[in-house]
This record gives sequence, C-alpha cells and structure tokens, in this order.
Amino acid sequence: MSIDHAQIVLERCSALGAFSEEQGQLTRRSFTPAMRSAYDQVTTWMRAAGMVIHEDCIGNLVGTYTANRSAARTLIIGSHLDTVRDAGIFDGILGVMIGLAIVERLHQAKRRLPFAIEVVGFIDQEGLRFGSSFLGSRVLAGSFDPAALLLRDETGMTVADAVRDFGGHPDLIAEEARRRQTLLGYLEVHIEQDTHLEKANLPVGVVSTIAGISRATLTYNGVTSHAGTVPMDQRHDALCGASEFVGAVESYAREIPGLVATVGELCVAPGSRNVVPGTATLSLDLRHQDDQARLSALAHLHWRAGAIASERGLSLRWDEAQVQSGTTMADGLRTRLSNAISAAGHTPVELASGACHDASVMSGITDASVLFVRCKGGISHNPAESVTAEDVAVAIDVVERFINDLAG
Amino acid sequence: MSIDHAQIVLERCSALGAFSEEQGQLTRRSFTPAMRSAYDQVTTWMRAAGMVIHEDCIGNLVGTYTANRSAARTLIIGSHLDTVRDAGIFDGILGVMIGLAIVERLHQAKRRLPFAIEVVGFIDQEGLRFGSSFLGSRVLAGSFDPAALLLRDETGMTVADAVRDFGGHPDLIAEEARRRQTLLGYLEVHIEQDTHLEKANLPVGVVSTIAGISRATLTYNGVTSHAGTVPMDQRHDALCGASEFVGAVESYAREIPGLVATVGELCVAPGSRNVVPGTATLSLDLRHQDDQARLSALAHLHWRAGAIASERGLSLRWDEAQVQSGTTMADGLRTRLSNAISAAGHTPVELASGACHDASVMSGITDASVLFVRCKGGISHNPAESVTAEDVAVAIDVVERFINDLAG
Repeated sequence: MSIDHAQIVLERCSALGAFSEEQGQLTRRSFTPAMRSAYDQVTTWMRAAGMVIHEDCIGNLVGTYTANRSAARTLIIGSHLDTVRDAGIFDGILGVMIGLAIVERLHQAKRRLPFAIEVVGFIDQEGLRFGSSFLGSRVLAGSFDPAALLLRDETGMTVADAVRDFGGHPDLIAEEARRRQTLLGYLEVHIEQDTHLEKANLPVGVVSTIAGISRATLTYNGVTSHAGTVPMDQRHDALCGASEFVGAVESYAREIPGLVATVGELCVAPGSRNVVPGTATLSLDLRHQDDQARLSALAHLHWRAGAIASERGLSLRWDEAQVQSGTTMADGLRTRLSNAISAAGHTPVELASGACHDASVMSGITDASVLFVRCKGGISHNPAESVTAEDVAVAIDVVERFINDLAG
Repeated sequence: MSIDHAQIVLERCSALGAFSEEQGQLTRRSFTPAMRSAYDQVTTWMRAAGMVIHEDCIGNLVGTYTANRSAARTLIIGSHLDTVRDAGIFDGILGVMIGLAIVERLHQAKRRLPFAIEVVGFIDQEGLRFGSSFLGSRVLAGSFDPAALLLRDETGMTVADAVRDFGGHPDLIAEEARRRQTLLGYLEVHIEQDTHLEKANLPVGVVSTIAGISRATLTYNGVTSHAGTVPMDQRHDALCGASEFVGAVESYAREIPGLVATVGELCVAPGSRNVVPGTATLSLDLRHQDDQARLSALAHLHWRAGAIASERGLSLRWDEAQVQSGTTMADGLRTRLSNAISAAGHTPVELASGACHDASVMSGITDASVLFVRCKGGISHNPAESVTAEDVAVAIDVVERFINDLAG
C-alpha cells in the first residue's frame, strides 16, 4: 500500500530534519558536516533499496537503479538536500525521499524497467552558504559557471575548497555534464509552497512554468559618524538609504502584477546604536513568470537604487546575477503526469510555480517536469512546513503510474 | 613646555589604539583582554607620574595624586577607556591622557595641591559590549542600577560575570558611590565631535549643556515565508516594517529642530536572500538638549512604530530606556574654565554637546565640567578622528590654569 510507504517517507523526512548545523532548528548548508550526516543516512536507505551509490564531482548524491537491459536511457528523479536557515523538513527533501520510495517499491517487487532510474539529492539549491544557486543541478545540466567555484562563505572558504573537503573534484566538473541522448527525462516532486492545491482541495498538481529569478547585492556607503553630534541634514546614513530602497522595492512590486520582490538580507556596519551607519549591504530577489517583466523590474530598481544614492550623497555598489530564466516544463511529461493523476482518481490541474526548482536547470539538458504536493497553508522555508501521508501516498501512486506509462 | 607634553599625549593615545580586539581596527569593549592590556599600560604611566593606583569595584582605573594636606577634597579628571567598533584613538582616551599629563607635570615640579587629583579611566561609557551606558561613572555617582549587572553580551555573559572576571566586585558596587562632600568637582577633556570650534577657529571651548539620550530596542515580528511563492499583498515582512520605521525616524527628526535620531543597528532573521524576513530588530537613539522635546519625540516614534506594525499585521516589541537626562554643567567651573581660556590667550566660547559624556552622570554627585578640544571635521567614532598637538597643548595649559585657580 502506498499509504504505508508514504508514512515511511514522512518519517525519513523527519529523521533527516535532525541533521542540522544549529541546535533546535534545521539549517543544513551545502558541504557541511550536517550534510555529510544526511548523505550517510540517505546512502544507507538507497543501498537497501538496491541502488548503486556514487557522489559526483560537485558532491551530488546519486543512487542508480539499473535498467533491465544495457544501453538504456536514464530517468532522473531528484531534488535538493540543502535547506534555508530555520527550515521545514520537506522542501527539497520530500522529492528525494519519494524517488527513493519509488525505487524501493520496484526493488521489493524485484522489478527492473527498460530505463535506469537515478535518484539524485542535489548538494546545493537554496544556496544559503555561498549565496549561490543550483550548484548541484547545473553540473549535471552542463551549465555550471566555473566562476562559482570562487564564491566564498562567511568564513572566507571558497566553493572549490568546500567541494574538495567534502570529497568532490572541482577540477573535473566540466566532465560531469550529462549527454542529452542518455537521458529519458527529469522528474521532481516538490511541496507546492503555495495554496492553489489547498484551495482546490487537490492532493497534487502538475507544474506548467517556473518563474525566473534575478538577484542583486547592493552596498550603500556613506559616512560613519556620531549619533549625537551630526545634525540630520549633514548625515550620509547608509541605513537610511538602504531602508528607502527596501520601501521602493515593496511599493514597486505591489504595482506590477505577478512580480514578487524580496530583500531577505540586510547588514549594517559598524552596527553600534550610537553610531550613524556608514555601510549597509542588502540582497534583492526578483521573480516573475515572464522574463521581460522581471528584467524590466530589475532595471527599474537598479535605477531607483542609484537615484537614492545620489540624493543622499552615498555611493552604491550593485552586483547583479541572473539566476535562472523562466522555464516551461516539457509538454510530453506534463501530459503523462496529468494522465497519471486522472488514472489515480484525481482531477489533474496545471500550476505555475513561483518558487524556483532544480527542474528549471535540468530543463536545459532534458525534458523536465515537476509534480507538486499540497502543503498546509502554502507555508515553506519555515519549520511549520506540513504535508499529509495521504497526499504523499497519492504522489507515490501518480509517480508509479507515470513510470509505468514511460516503461509501457 | 606644554607642546612637548601634548606630543607625548598624542603618542600615548596612539599607543593605546593598538590595544584592540580586532585586527586592523580599534575596538576595545569593556572588561576584555584588550582593555586589560590598555589598563596595564596606563597603570605604568600613572605610577611613573607619582600616582597611587586602584581599580574600583566595577573596574574603573583610578590613579590618585594625593594632596599636600590631609582631609583634602578631590578633583576628579576623567573620561572613558572603552571604544565603539572601528573607533578613533581620541574619543574618551584623550581626556584620561590629559589628566595624566597634568599630574605628571605637577609631579615633575614636585608640587602638591591643597586637593587630591584622581585621574579616572572609566571602564564603560560607549556600552558597545552590553548595550549599556556609563557603567563606570554611574558607580562613582551612586546612580548605578543593579539590574545592569544582568545585561548580557553577544556570547551570553552577564555584566556581573564580566566584572568578576576582570577582577572587580559586583556585590560591593553600592559602597563605591562617592560622598558629595569629599569631592571638589569633576573635569572632563574631550574631543568636540562637531565643527563649531573648527568653524570659529578656536582650539578649545567650554561645554554649557549636554544633550539627554533616550534609547529603545524594537523587534518587529511577521511571518517568515518563501520569496517566490507569497504574493506581495499576502506578506507580513518584518524588514519592510522596520525600513518604514527607519524612514519615519529620519523624516520626523528632520522636522524637529535640535533633534537627532539614529537607527545604528538593524538585524534581520532568518537572513536568507530567498526568504521573506520574519523578524527585524533595530535600535533607536534619540538626543535633544531639551528633555521635553526628546521625550515627546520618543512618544511620537513609539506611536509610529506601533502604527506601522498594525498596518502590516506585524507584532512589535518596544523596549525603552532613558539613558541620561539633559544636564547643565556647573556654573562655577564653567566660569573658571572660561577664565583659564582667556588667560591662555584664547577667546572663551560655550558650546552645547550633542554627544553624551561621563560628565552628565558625574553632575549627579558633584559639580561637573567639560573642556572641548577641536577635532578635524568634527569626525568621531571613526578611525579618522584627529586632533593637533597645538590644540592639545592649549588644553593642557587651560587645565593647568584652571587647577591653579582652584588651588589659589
């Protein structure tokens, strides 16, 4: 019964939630000892499910369930094993655990398919540690930018050194890119992180498009000065500039339908209550289903950031990175997922994803698809993330039908 | 020649600037190993200048130059030895070094006065480590609030434990308060931290009043959520609330003559670029020469902070502390300082101080006065703090005349 397996999936997500860098909350950044512990646990489960395990050059955890014939193509079922700070236990992890459950059930039934299945736990999607994104899936998709190896974490360690310490081989990353003709496709199961399924009273849904993301890091520099002696009209307060920008981001995003814009990080230096801040550094994250709308928002906010700096006699440094274009999921796989949902007795719906997923990156190398699972209140990136065993059972059922369809 | 001694004062300020907790910049918080090293150095100099040294219960460094008769009263010349983060070398330290120079010159002349001089280096005025203020001078003035012993630094250590580790006796603090009748007065020499003297082309000036300070710590709590999936109109973004408050503080303070208002600290949690912030904590520092104006500003901004929280569906925690009332320096000492400036051949001017000083606290127990020394560009709380040997020589000359006047 898939409900029993769904229960196991939930228990495993919960067990992995214990592998954290921080006491009392789940924070598991890439290449950390907490990630190593999670890998050890997942490896044990994968081996028991008949998979051959390897870690690739960047450190993705790959469990392969071989096909019933040689020269077969591969279906990758994946998601990420890193988390945000103070995270929930399902974002990313659920997709890997459902992939594992699917293979486990094939293994228990002593069944091999005419294609291999690789269950992949990506090492880095949230990018908390290095301010990176998709370090894992980009290696497989052949879109890894070697410059990312030079990014540093808060202790000054580079990605390259972190990869090496974790047992990977940063110098061989280019060779890790998959060849398109070896792949059958990519499937990711993920919590919805929104309330469309909840409102429609449906357990699962098929993703149509995934929003693109742009990011920037801004640094305002003004003049550090004494909080008691410098009159208001003579200050060059970096935090006042940064705060005005936060307000501008919010007002602008409220006016543009479909745009979401977030300042998630803001640091002030020197950071003393009796000192006018000389420096403020903040992040900007912009998302829209439509790439043009996103890029035009980015250009507008860049201009606004500069105007704020000029008016206040501050300097501005603006470092911009397009993280990911908007992507459309592969038609063929979407249809197969919808058919599987119908066959499982549920109404198939298609949803646009505001959150970004490894599937966006993987769509660059193979047909990619995402199955969303309803999550309570749409809450994610939060310890309150919640899914039900019943919905997970439906997801397992749907993925099995999807796989049988591909095999048939 | 006082110019030679001024040069020594500058060299000593520079030498003490090396006792820092942070490489490459001066940060010397209270009760730290860096402070202990500074104390060891100052103690050596004080002993050589004929002073008897003791550290009081809170850890202030006190050098006593005894009087030429018994039962004499005491003139305290003091300022603080702690710094802000990435500080200049003169704020606080200059006053202690000039006190030391004055005694040194008396000692070299083998001269005792009809009153004792205590040169005091206060352990904590900036309050960087504990978010406290005036831990040192409040003990002498008898206005120390024992609740301050429970404040904690970022590692969780309390003031009481820090005092104990440093060799002090937190349990005996109440007994350390001076008796008014034993004191002749208090004099503090301090950099101006403003440009009035520079604009008037004067080396020194007499402080008339010192601004009062109110402080508050605000915490906005909203809902941590996903930067990609939660539409703008459904967010409860704590940083957006905090930023709106920073803007409100700045606009309000610009409208009220004489008010300065600063948000010097702002921290965001969880602090990931792809997460809508659930919590933002910030500091507020308000100063005005007029206590009523300051308290009315505090009340207004408290109301504004709450209104912002309500409009945004955030919760607000507001912790308020009146740090220090505005104080007027003692008439008699002001007159003596002005006379001394005239006698030294300079034009005496009186200045209001926007920065707060230990003199504010000491005025609660004795007649208090402050002599300002011109500093370049009014810059302080910044490595660019700068004073000239010529101006320091004038300050030494003025303080000597002031002391001779008191002795005569």
